[in-house]
Amino acid sequence: MQGQSQQQAYDRGITIFSPDGRLYQVEYAREAVKRGSASVGVRTADGVVLLADKRIRSPLLVGESVEKLHKADDHVGIASAGHVADARQLIDYARRYSQVNQLRYGEPIGVETLTKAVTDNIQQYTQVGGARPFGVALIIGGIDDGQPRLFETDPSGTPYEWKALAVGANRSDIEEYLKEQYQAEMDLEGGIGLALEALASVNEDGLEAEGLGVATIDSETEQYQVLDEDEVESYLDEHDLLPDDTDDEE
Amino acid sequence: MQGQSQQQAYDRGITIFSPDGRLYQVEYAREAVKRGSASVGVRTADGVVLLADKRIRSPLLVGESVEKLHKADDHVGIASAGHVADARQLIDYARRYSQVNQLRYGEPIGVETLTKAVTDNIQQYTQVGGARPFGVALIIGGIDDGQPRLFETDPSGTPYEWKALAVGANRSDIEEYLKEQYQAEMDLEGGIGLALEALASVNEDGLEAEGLGVATIDSETEQYQVLDEDEVESYLDEHDLLPDDTDDEE
Amino acid sequence: MQGQSQQQAYDRGITIFSPDGRLYQVEYAREAVKRGSASVGVRTADGVVLLADKRIRSPLLVGESVEKLHKADDHVGIASAGHVADARQLIDYARRYSQVNQLRYGEPIGVETLTKAVTDNIQQYTQVGGARPFGVALIIGGIDDGQPRLFETDPSGTPYEWKALAVGANRSDIEEYLKEQYQAEMDLEGGIGLALEALASVNEDGLEAEGLGVATIDSETEQYQVLDEDEVESYLDEHDLLPDDTDDEE
Amino acid sequence: MQGQSQQQAYDRGITIFSPDGRLYQVEYAREAVKRGSASVGVRTADGVVLLADKRIRSPLLVGESVEKLHKADDHVGIASAGHVADARQLIDYARRYSQVNQLRYGEPIGVETLTKAVTDNIQQYTQVGGARPFGVALIIGGIDDGQPRLFETDPSGTPYEWKALAVGANRSDIEEYLKEQYQAEMDLEGGIGLALEALASVNEDGLEAEGLGVATIDSETEQYQVLDEDEVESYLDEHDLLPDDTDDEE
Amino acid sequence: MQGQSQQQAYDRGITIFSPDGRLYQVEYAREAVKRGSASVGVRTADGVVLLADKRIRSPLLVGESVEKLHKADDHVGIASAGHVADARQLIDYARRYSQVNQLRYGEPIGVETLTKAVTDNIQQYTQVGGARPFGVALIIGGIDDGQPRLFETDPSGTPYEWKALAVGANRSDIEEYLKEQYQAEMDLEGGIGLALEALASVNEDGLEAEGLGVATIDSETEQYQVLDEDEVESYLDEHDLLPDDTDDEE
Amino acid sequence: MQGQSQQQAYDRGITIFSPDGRLYQVEYAREAVKRGSASVGVRTADGVVLLADKRIRSPLLVGESVEKLHKADDHVGIASAGHVADARQLIDYARRYSQVNQLRYGEPIGVETLTKAVTDNIQQYTQVGGARPFGVALIIGGIDDGQPRLFETDPSGTPYEWKALAVGANRSDIEEYLKEQYQAEMDLEGGIGLALEALASVNEDGLEAEGLGVATIDSETEQYQVLDEDEVESYLDEHDLLPDDTDDEE
Amino acid sequence: MQGQSQQQAYDRGITIFSPDGRLYQVEYAREAVKRGSASVGVRTADGVVLLADKRIRSPLLVGESVEKLHKADDHVGIASAGHVADARQLIDYARRYSQVNQLRYGEPIGVETLTKAVTDNIQQYTQVGGARPFGVALIIGGIDDGQPRLFETDPSGTPYEWKALAVGANRSDIEEYLKEQYQAEMDLEGGIGLALEALASVNEDGLEAEGLGVATIDSETEQYQVLDEDEVESYLDEHDLLPDDTDDEE
Repeated sequence: MQGQSQQQAYDRGITIFSPDGRLYQVEYAREAVKRGSASVGVRTADGVVLLADKRIRSPLLVGESVEKLHKADDHVGIASAGHVADARQLIDYARRYSQVNQLRYGEPIGVETLTKAVTDNIQQYTQVGGARPFGVALIIGGIDDGQPRLFETDPSGTPYEWKALAVGANRSDIEEYLKEQYQAEMDLEGGIGLALEALASVNEDGLEAEGLGVATIDSETEQYQVLDEDEVESYLDEHDLLPDDTDDEE
Repeated sequence: MQGQSQQQAYDRGITIFSPDGRLYQVEYAREAVKRGSASVGVRTADGVVLLADKRIRSPLLVGESVEKLHKADDHVGIASAGHVADARQLIDYARRYSQVNQLRYGEPIGVETLTKAVTDNIQQYTQVGGARPFGVALIIGGIDDGQPRLFETDPSGTPYEWKALAVGANRSDIEEYLKEQYQAEMDLEGGIGLALEALASVNEDGLEAEGLGVATIDSETEQYQVLDEDEVESYLDEHDLLPDDTDDEE
Repeated sequence: MQGQSQQQAYDRGITIFSPDGRLYQVEYAREAVKRGSASVGVRTADGVVLLADKRIRSPLLVGESVEKLHKADDHVGIASAGHVADARQLIDYARRYSQVNQLRYGEPIGVETLTKAVTDNIQQYTQVGGARPFGVALIIGGIDDGQPRLFETDPSGTPYEWKALAVGANRSDIEEYLKEQYQAEMDLEGGIGLALEALASVNEDGLEAEGLGVATIDSETEQYQVLDEDEVESYLDEHDLLPDDTDDEE
Repeated sequence: MQGQSQQQAYDRGITIFSPDGRLYQVEYAREAVKRGSASVGVRTADGVVLLADKRIRSPLLVGESVEKLHKADDHVGIASAGHVADARQLIDYARRYSQVNQLRYGEPIGVETLTKAVTDNIQQYTQVGGARPFGVALIIGGIDDGQPRLFETDPSGTPYEWKALAVGANRSDIEEYLKEQYQAEMDLEGGIGLALEALASVNEDGLEAEGLGVATIDSETEQYQVLDEDEVESYLDEHDLLPDDTDDEE
Repeated sequence: MQGQSQQQAYDRGITIFSPDGRLYQVEYAREAVKRGSASVGVRTADGVVLLADKRIRSPLLVGESVEKLHKADDHVGIASAGHVADARQLIDYARRYSQVNQLRYGEPIGVETLTKAVTDNIQQYTQVGGARPFGVALIIGGIDDGQPRLFETDPSGTPYEWKALAVGANRSDIEEYLKEQYQAEMDLEGGIGLALEALASVNEDGLEAEGLGVATIDSETEQYQVLDEDEVESYLDEHDLLPDDTDDEE
Repeated sequence: MQGQSQQQAYDRGITIFSPDGRLYQVEYAREAVKRGSASVGVRTADGVVLLADKRIRSPLLVGESVEKLHKADDHVGIASAGHVADARQLIDYARRYSQVNQLRYGEPIGVETLTKAVTDNIQQYTQVGGARPFGVALIIGGIDDGQPRLFETDPSGTPYEWKALAVGANRSDIEEYLKEQYQAEMDLEGGIGLALEALASVNEDGLEAEGLGVATIDSETEQYQVLDEDEVESYLDEHDLLPDDTDDEE
Repeated sequence: MQGQSQQQAYDRGITIFSPDGRLYQVEYAREAVKRGSASVGVRTADGVVLLADKRIRSPLLVGESVEKLHKADDHVGIASAGHVADARQLIDYARRYSQVNQLRYGEPIGVETLTKAVTDNIQQYTQVGGARPFGVALIIGGIDDGQPRLFETDPSGTPYEWKALAVGANRSDIEEYLKEQYQAEMDLEGGIGLALEALASVNEDGLEAEGLGVATIDSETEQYQVLDEDEVESYLDEHDLLPDDTDDEE
């Protein structure tokens, strides 16, 4: 009781500290991320893999319209989890920031530079009043000087670099799978397989291509590329991740 | 009890997260949408159908003045459900955005582009303080490069693309009907029939032409066109959706 | 009990939604309208009639100074119910908007266009913080391209078009009378009679010319015209609506 | 109990409606007016009379310094009741507005025009947040095109025109007297007498010239003129309104 | 109980009315004035006297530094009671206002004009939000066209003119003494004596020159002049107001 | 109980008065001053002495970095007690103000002028909302026209001039010592001794040179000068104020 | 109970004082610092050492991406503890401030000057409303005129200079170790060893090079330099601080 009523006192204000030094609004924004379906990122020896679970609930919904995978620049992709409309704001910010960088310096923006510009923007919403934090986490993947890089932004505005990670629902279970299976020397195909398997590890009924988004950024071409549904289907088939009987599905 | 009093603590502030990561004001705005009479959208092989239930309660009210169907651009129509005055703000925004696009690029705006401009505008009202979210959902239909497209905007600012959908009162029942009867290869006439039948499925007493608004955007002409009352009447008659005895109606 | 205390939680904030999707401040502003004496509008075949009950309580008060009927433009009149000072703001807005339209386009503003400009202005006060909604409803009548038009603006900022309507005290009773007696083919004189009779239907003691304001906008002349007290008196006499014994009146 | 606690919920906010459509802050500002000593205005056939009860409590106070009568323009006077410092703001506003009008149009401002400019200013303080309403009522009297006019502004920003009125303490009792005795054909002298008698009707101990302010605006001269103490004394004497024994007064 | 809890509801907001039309923050500011040591003003036939009780509690404090008497202009002095730092703001305002007047019109500002400029400034802090009222009362004395004038400003922003007055602690007792002893035909010396005697009437232990400030503005010289400690001492001696045994004083 | 709960109602708002006319935030800021270690100022016949207790708790802390003594201008020094970071803001303000004065008038700023500029700045933070008061008291010492001057600024923004004073912890005990021992004709050395002895009177274990800051402003040189640790040590030794056994100290 | 509920009343507001003169939000921000992993700074005879514990919890996280060590200028490094995203804002501020200084004065910024610019920035967030304090402490180390300097900034905005210090988790235990072992004449290698040993003193399981960041600023080169993982490993090995059996580590 005591603990709870005390907590209530601090979690209403947008940007204030609790007595134990926590920012509840930021922590609640993390809960908003957990409510969103998962996205997965894997860094391989020759590129980055982004995978998004679109969680499509109606056959009338057009799957491609569920925005969880975004091209931020030719060589940078972003997968999100959490509040979709919030994600769009940050994606827009990232795109504009990339374009301005290209115009100003005549070269593509670095993935780390871009990530930190985004997190600094996020941080402002956790410190200055008059707005709530962003309820979204991003996986930003791309190629920096020929090297694959994979970053996370969280609602506090902290940037992290990962070899492989998940954001959104079931994050810790998916990461557990990644931790056990990750190998730095994997190629892109291996990375796609690992990402799908990790996501499947928390979906007992298997995965359907229509409900997934998969994108890669190859170290050589430095191009963001989205796999079409058939390609995803064949990966799922190859890794035996399709539902046992897809006809029973709604 | 516990649950309820806890909820009360978070749903008063306009733009803050609850401990479980929800934005109550946005969810309440969704309730405002549900309080509004339904609108229906259907994407067919050769165009888009928009249908609005105007719910006219007095014979002294001029039916055409109930604003639920709007022309946003020559090739784009919008049907709304929820707070009428809020809808007008978003429609105005959509119209100005379309015009500016035409002036700047010399070509009609894409339906998806327009939808996302509208949802980004909506999102701002859910994150930045000093205003409440929009209490309205829109169905935005139109032709993109000859293809019929059908989008939804919700109070959180998330865009969705649909084959067929309903917003407002009885949404799930109407969508249930649409899901069972929808066929992608329908023509516009078939789409109008489906929309009317879906709406009628939740109105036991039948539908009256005067209380309905129907508009189409044909893939060929790329023109938003409103059906007149007689046309609607004949569709209702054809599908046997008229009230059994219209004379008993007030 | 539960219901009431829950309501209290939401109706204090100016612009936030209640859990069931209502905007209490707007609904309370509607109560402010109901507290005001009634105004009536009737659309006839050859013009529009506006009638206002001035509810004059003291013989020392100068009846003409009670502002319930306003000329917005040569061809547009406005009757109000509710908060008088709020009405003045909207009337001023309507007048300035009409003048600017005249200057910019060289022609009189459309009645529908004007109404929607006013309702958009009203809507802003229901969404953006820092001010309360307008506690007033307007009846805007005038001539559009030779056609009589009659609109209502409510505190939510929704525009409605009517054949005949009442706003303010006893609205539903007056409208009940209008619904039964309204005939579209009435001429202006008939419209004036109907309006007076409808108002009298909720005033058992009869009506006095001094306490009423009557204005017409004729489709031919397209001029807003106020009836003088004698004219109103003779209408009242003709329709047998005068108090039985006016001498007993205070 | 219920009623009271419910009221408390609404009367704290500056500019919000109560569930029954009232603006409590405006109603409380009216209470501030009632706390102030009375002012009286009388419109006669050949001019306007303004009378102010200065309620001087100490012989050390300089009576002329109690500001209740003000010259707004050559042909317009203002008497106030309520919060003195608030009145000064409105008087200043009225004076500046008059001067600007004179400069811009080369002629004196109309009394009605001036009154409505003042009430529109008052209304803003009742709708837009960040300030409280004005706690004062004004009687604005003057000559329009040779005609005497007499207006009231109340804390809601509503303008009223009167033949005779009182504002401040004992308003209704004084107006009762005015209602019984008022005659439109009175001359200025008669108007002064009526105003003094009306005020005396609520002051059992009689009136003293030193504690009163009397001003007239004559239709012919169109000049605001303050009576000196001797003149007021002789009027009081003539109407037998002096205290029985002024020596007993403090 | 009832009364008190009701009061609490209204006295927290800075600028709102209570149900009985009072502004609690202004009334509390008046309490801040009462907490300050007294200042006294006396208008005599040939000038104005200002007296301030500095209430010096430590022999280490430099008496002259206690700011209660200020020269606002050559011909205007100000004595204050209440919040010292607030007083400084108003004094600064008065000085700047006087200087600007001198520059603009080439002549010294009128005492009444200056007083009203100060009270208008004070009033703003009682109506517009975002700041508290000034917790200080001023006695403004000076010469207008050769005539001595003596004004008071209170925390509501109301100006009063007095023949003699006190502000601050024991105001009513001091004014009682003034009321009994005041004579309009006194000269400046008589006025100084009266002011000191009035202050001594509420200080049983007598007065010490070091703890007092006395200033005069002579009608002839029109110059603000501060008495030095010896002069004050001799006045005290002459009027037998010194402590019986000053050695016992701390 | 009553008293306390009533107090709570008023001390949360930043700048509002309590019913008894107090500004709680200012009084709490005074508590912040008391929480800080003491500073002492002494005015002697030939200059001013400033002494600061740095209260150094760790041998790893660099004593000079504890900011309690500041040079504001060549001829002005400032010692502070309370919130260190707040003090820095006021010191910066004082420095910039001094420089601007030098540039504008070509001569060093007066100590009294500077003090009042600082207190006016402090006052703003107690009246205008959106910020808290400064939690610091300053001792401002310097030379005005060859005369030593010693001022205090408190959190309310009131300036005081002193012969000798203390601010911060144990203020009243230190001042008691000063009051008993102060002699106006002391020279600077005597003043240093008095300041150290006064501080030692509340430190039973003696004083250490490393934890103290001592500065003087000589009337002749008009230069702010900080004593080095050895000089302080020898003063302490001379006055027998060193700890009995400094080796036992941490 | 009493104490706690009283505390709750004051710790919600961002920038207000509690009755005992504390700023709770600042104290809670200090708790946020304690929640962060430790950073250590040591000043040696020939340079400064900065050490950061990155507390890496997953092998998939890229250690270098955990931002706790930053180069602010060629000759200045910063280690942080607490809220990472907040730290980034202050680091950015420090970098921009350094660059502007270089551009304006043509020479590198002083370490003390830079520290105080940062703390002044921090202080603003504790006094002015609309934002929360920074939840981070910084260790700023560098070379001033050839001398090594080591500063701390805390959430209140107070600057401290240290010979050696720790911020973040287990601060007092680490400082205890530093206090016992610190020798001013150490060289850089000795300083690195001391920092590592001090951190190891609170990590029973030993330290791993991958989870640590070590940087030095040499007095001669005046260059910020980060040690690579192998160098750190060999230091750990040399000081016998490696985990007993690194293979068991996750």
